[in-house]
Amino acid sequence: MLSEFDLIKRYFKRQRPGRPDVALGIGDDCALLAPTPGRQIAISSDMLVEDRHFFAGADPLMLGHKALAVNLSDLAAMGARPVAFTLALSLPRADEAWLDGFSRGLFALADEHGCELIGGDTTKGPLNICITVFGEVAPGHALRRAAAKPGDDIWISGTLGDARLALAGCWKEVELPPETQEQAAPRLHMPTPRVALGLALATVPGAPIAHAALDISDGLVGDLGHILAASGVGATLDVDALPAGPALARQDLALRRRFTAAGGDDYELCFTAPVSQRAAVLEAAAQAATPVTRVGTIETAPGLRLVDAHGAPLDLGLTGWDHFSAG
Amino acid sequence: MLSEFDLIKRYFKRQRPGRPDVALGIGDDCALLAPTPGRQIAISSDMLVEDRHFFAGADPLMLGHKALAVNLSDLAAMGARPVAFTLALSLPRADEAWLDGFSRGLFALADEHGCELIGGDTTKGPLNICITVFGEVAPGHALRRAAAKPGDDIWISGTLGDARLALAGCWKEVELPPETQEQAAPRLHMPTPRVALGLALATVPGAPIAHAALDISDGLVGDLGHILAASGVGATLDVDALPAGPALARQDLALRRRFTAAGGDDYELCFTAPVSQRAAVLEAAAQAATPVTRVGTIETAPGLRLVDAHGAPLDLGLTGWDHFSAG
Repeated sequence: MLSEFDLIKRYFKRQRPGRPDVALGIGDDCALLAPTPGRQIAISSDMLVEDRHFFAGADPLMLGHKALAVNLSDLAAMGARPVAFTLALSLPRADEAWLDGFSRGLFALADEHGCELIGGDTTKGPLNICITVFGEVAPGHALRRAAAKPGDDIWISGTLGDARLALAGCWKEVELPPETQEQAAPRLHMPTPRVALGLALATVPGAPIAHAALDISDGLVGDLGHILAASGVGATLDVDALPAGPALARQDLALRRRFTAAGGDDYELCFTAPVSQRAAVLEAAAQAATPVTRVGTIETAPGLRLVDAHGAPLDLGLTGWDHFSAG
Repeated sequence: MLSEFDLIKRYFKRQRPGRPDVALGIGDDCALLAPTPGRQIAISSDMLVEDRHFFAGADPLMLGHKALAVNLSDLAAMGARPVAFTLALSLPRADEAWLDGFSRGLFALADEHGCELIGGDTTKGPLNICITVFGEVAPGHALRRAAAKPGDDIWISGTLGDARLALAGCWKEVELPPETQEQAAPRLHMPTPRVALGLALATVPGAPIAHAALDISDGLVGDLGHILAASGVGATLDVDALPAGPALARQDLALRRRFTAAGGDDYELCFTAPVSQRAAVLEAAAQAATPVTRVGTIETAPGLRLVDAHGAPLDLGLTGWDHFSAG
């Protein structure tokens, strides 16, 4: 039987040299970070629960990837550079095949971003994955939800809706050909945190290129609503300008509109920037090798107005995802 | 029905002014800490699961206290000053009475230590509480497990074993009079993190008073073993010198020895310090208003030797707690 200490040693404690700003990693009462002088530490925590955030029996490698990806996505949304993370894991049993897959998925993404596992906890219990991630950002350069200004363009990175389409396929909400399901599935199970784009928008001399930003996890309309509420502004969103994922792009207009506007699990960035920064936004996007699309405008009048390609009002009857009201 | 956002707003987002080094608290993609220049950030994560770390139906106020206390105890063991924490919470349902009690227990202890809730996550699922805590410590002043030196005294804060006795009473392992159970129970449900003592031992000009330290969560013998392994040393422990809690002190010798040496859930500090620092240790303990007891010696020879009051070897047949081997 694999003990708790063996489990940590075998799957989570690595022998390679760590980051110089990690003064102490796994194995003591606390880890120790030595922050870059003058930088702020950006911190985010996400908890993933079986049957809510992922299916029972989900591929552990993809789960390892996704558990860290959703946290890195929060750093991306602040424009922070990933540094380190802790992992608290509740497992029904010490299943070595599961742990092997999970840790490989986790570390593949962690290594891609130079983000070091510095500590955590393991316990027996219903499957639950809680990651807390640490990044750094220069003071005044974090992209905050409250920073949108009337007149700002609203931008979206990448494409929307394929994660939701994959989920709809799993749930048999829609009938999808196997190749469509296969094309959409990685967007649900292996999201790409837009770290490079967040950094390119935030880390420039003077003020950041973008004003407000967040990552789209619960559907664009609901998440954009958080920017509007925090900033005390409204917006018009051109639903037909929303970039649909390649699998969703082949579906009918009603589904395209619904899943791009309020799909969820997209882990793209939604950000606002002044019109004067359009060229700078496109340059940052090119630098980050991440496509961006302009999809609306921040306005003084409160509320979110959805319009179609012709500017005519659209009522999609949408709401965001709420863990306690829903399901 | 209480929504996720209302839940956070009502129970966890406070209107009072926060710490100046918390640049951004709850409500964005990340929180932002502005660390004191030149300090290291100590980080620890603990996950508490129903039926493993606490009974189903446990008093939510005590649970709120304990969930933070076990994390503050890790900061104490490093000699770090508490700054802030994140809370990720999986709840079967948004039960307002539970949330009210839990948040009151949590914030009472947080306020005592000036430790601010800066973010986290809430989701629906089996009850699971994951706290990640942040403290600060001057470089070179953190009390590390690997720092014990042959010749060091071994010290224990407070008393041991009453938490284990309370658990034994609940499990009907021993028959306890109601007043004994009542006396011991708070040690199990409302542990006191020894933050002041950890700070007093670590935060002095020059080098810390103590060498190695950790907090006793899984039983002294097992936890002291971590110090020995990390430091590459051995020790002799005078089991009869271990300070029993007042309820345990009235039990028979065999139980006293077993529960002080390997009870678990004590959340006292075990630390080592050179003989030359005995007066300084006692002064730090007085300053922290925390009793300390000298219980053994670090030695070059590997292994942990348990002895009785006469120095004769004792075999208690003890092992530490392991979440995957046990239960």
